[in-house]
Amino acid sequence: MTEYERDGAEIYRQSFATIRAEADLAGFPEDVATAAVRMIHACGMVDLAADIAYSPGVVAAGRAALEAGAPILCDAQMVASGVTRKRLPADNDVLCLLSDPRVPGLAKDLGTTRSAAAVELWADRLEGSVVAIGNAPTALFHLLDLLDRGAPKPAAILGIPVGFIGAAESKAALAAYPGIEFLIVKGRRGGSAITAAAINAIAHEKEIQA
Amino acid sequence: MTEYERDGAEIYRQSFATIRAEADLAGFPEDVATAAVRMIHACGMVDLAADIAYSPGVVAAGRAALEAGAPILCDAQMVASGVTRKRLPADNDVLCLLSDPRVPGLAKDLGTTRSAAAVELWADRLEGSVVAIGNAPTALFHLLDLLDRGAPKPAAILGIPVGFIGAAESKAALAAYPGIEFLIVKGRRGGSAITAAAINAIAHEKEIQA
Repeated sequence: MTEYERDGAEIYRQSFATIRAEADLAGFPEDVATAAVRMIHACGMVDLAADIAYSPGVVAAGRAALEAGAPILCDAQMVASGVTRKRLPADNDVLCLLSDPRVPGLAKDLGTTRSAAAVELWADRLEGSVVAIGNAPTALFHLLDLLDRGAPKPAAILGIPVGFIGAAESKAALAAYPGIEFLIVKGRRGGSAITAAAINAIAHEKEIQA
Repeated sequence: MTEYERDGAEIYRQSFATIRAEADLAGFPEDVATAAVRMIHACGMVDLAADIAYSPGVVAAGRAALEAGAPILCDAQMVASGVTRKRLPADNDVLCLLSDPRVPGLAKDLGTTRSAAAVELWADRLEGSVVAIGNAPTALFHLLDLLDRGAPKPAAILGIPVGFIGAAESKAALAAYPGIEFLIVKGRRGGSAITAAAINAIAHEKEIQA
């Protein structure tokens, strides 16, 4: 039988301590640093810190929105699956509309991906929401287009899609967008696990929960 | 309105072409290379290739098992969520037992994590299954302990947990385990998205599906 650490809370504690010892978190506000620790924990790479960009109020704005009952709007089911429900302060809705029956037709009509079409269906929940895009650059681009056309503003946008086509560009466009509280990972890295981890950090100030 | 690629199939095509141009896939058997491409696609890092280790027959063994109807046993709901159901050849079961009501009590009795306790509940489905561990090192360690105690062998084990405590060690232990078809990412990197991507590659030989 192999010897290994079997205590879940102790694994968290040692993991977060390792990350804080190795990652360069200088310059992050304390609440954003806590989010960065969880994001690093989700991908196993302490150098992710160098690619994390944010508006300084993003964690406070996202947490206040969640405490007020805002929904979390996710581009992918994996992001929604990764949200730890018991960390949510108001039993918040965690929505991914990618499987909505309207999506395939809407994607065809709009000439875009299903991920972007699903964002179109967020319209009546957008105001004051917390957006978590962890998969599709087209979802993030489409959201910014909606905002250009006057859609209501989310309280915070976590824009952390991953990949080789449009990911870096969509995240740069979010970071440059005026008047939005945002959190991104610059470049190609990102994904549903890192995004869900950021939501889990924003949801609750307690770092470790039993 | 921002200009960006909106055709989902074209995004896949360009992404996979970029990965094949940049990643060093020399030395991989063709079917494992296809899995590596999807794993890289899921994390945005072409250098992941250098950390992928495998038994040469792992993709063939996993695919044959799925074609014969084997279940996919996942350690985390995020891994299960990431499996593209329409790529599965036999409408295979995709199981994650972490929310099973027996798990908390079992974890306490066994003195281990809930992730490891959930693996204990795989016992009657293990034989010939495809295992996808993308989150918890303790789940992978526990599975190896079960095999030590004579549990039936899965057809293939994708052992790609992520993190700072036990991840590298559990994956090294899997790679060293005799007589198992395996796929790992050495070191700290890994996670549910990379693991689900590997399953999606193994499930179907077609690289791009509409």
